[in-house]
Amino acid sequence: MKCYVLIMAAGSGSRFGAEIPKQFHELAGKPVVMHAIQQFLNWRNDIEIIIVLPAGYLTYWKNLTAKYSFNVPHSVTEGGATRFLSVRNGLALTGDDGLVAVHDGVRPLVSTDTITRCFETAEKYGSAVPVINPADTVRLETEQSSTTFDRNRVKLVQTPQVFRADIIRKAYMQDYNPGFTDDATVVEKSGIAIHLVEGNRENIKITNPEDLAVAGALLHYIF
Amino acid sequence: MKCYVLIMAAGSGSRFGAEIPKQFHELAGKPVVMHAIQQFLNWRNDIEIIIVLPAGYLTYWKNLTAKYSFNVPHSVTEGGATRFLSVRNGLALTGDDGLVAVHDGVRPLVSTDTITRCFETAEKYGSAVPVINPADTVRLETEQSSTTFDRNRVKLVQTPQVFRADIIRKAYMQDYNPGFTDDATVVEKSGIAIHLVEGNRENIKITNPEDLAVAGALLHYIF
Repeated sequence: MKCYVLIMAAGSGSRFGAEIPKQFHELAGKPVVMHAIQQFLNWRNDIEIIIVLPAGYLTYWKNLTAKYSFNVPHSVTEGGATRFLSVRNGLALTGDDGLVAVHDGVRPLVSTDTITRCFETAEKYGSAVPVINPADTVRLETEQSSTTFDRNRVKLVQTPQVFRADIIRKAYMQDYNPGFTDDATVVEKSGIAIHLVEGNRENIKITNPEDLAVAGALLHYIF
Repeated sequence: MKCYVLIMAAGSGSRFGAEIPKQFHELAGKPVVMHAIQQFLNWRNDIEIIIVLPAGYLTYWKNLTAKYSFNVPHSVTEGGATRFLSVRNGLALTGDDGLVAVHDGVRPLVSTDTITRCFETAEKYGSAVPVINPADTVRLETEQSSTTFDRNRVKLVQTPQVFRADIIRKAYMQDYNPGFTDDATVVEKSGIAIHLVEGNRENIKITNPEDLAVAGALLHYIF
């Protein structure tokens, strides 16, 4: 079955407090986003790769691929003003058949096992979202105070979120809604049930500068 | 005001898959638990330190303090069969006045700011529990499937959990209840409201071997 991955690298990284968006920072010898892409190629080397870049970064990216001898076949497109619009731009480069993964370019440590679970489940059920349980005790904030809560019922959501191509393409034809926090919420709103699969604990999102140090330690530990 | 900290180091570390419990593993030159203790001393060097060790580890600990020239005044006691019983053993060495912090010995990266917030809030309100928001999107598992959930209402609970001495000592006189997942749940069950304060994101619990690598990276980054 035809498989696509949209590598979402369109964030400006304003929270990261650096001039270069975090997905382009170097981690163990190559940019964060190239680690993410490599994991999908390790899973299946015929996966079609679509990279969604920040607006105005096409030349920057071209130079980056030259600098790091990144010779992997891929398409690029520019993102929009929101993540929702960026995904939509990426989906314009997919077909109506097959499976589409949407992956955060700032999650370089996704395991091939997680990718396998997501694609297999999406093929069977139409959707697959990787999650892990919190390592800590959980409380839920209530109106006045907070209550303890069964942490096994709380799922921390990762990517890749994988869907049948027709399902996600249809979902992204909806109008934008502020409740769209990830692809699962967009697809869910279109009436499709979301299937959860096990993610991997190391699959962290690089949000703050110290996350780069953490990712480096995990990379070293895992590989 | 008199301040105590129970350093909970009684875990056998069965999930860690090593012979030595994780709190005694070396991290940047000294055992994990000694980092945790040091942070409380950095906060206030007259804090009374009570270390709860695994049963049978008194000599092991004595040798460890000699090996690392750990000359900090402290008391030690042995833990019981459960965390609940271990905390109770530690509380036997506190007085009825002042404030008592209970801290996981496997959280070496608690910041002095977190410690300050916890003690100040507990002094004012009787209880203080440090929490952070998840970095990821959150879903809640329901009977049949799962629903997206506002991650700002989900709080991941850390330590130190700090209480007025009389409150926690009274709470631990209750009979054990399987709902007791941390000190907050024990105190809450005794009828006392729990006050949440901001923790610090680096304050991870060392549970798996890769967490040691992560803690090393964070230590390097922070200090």
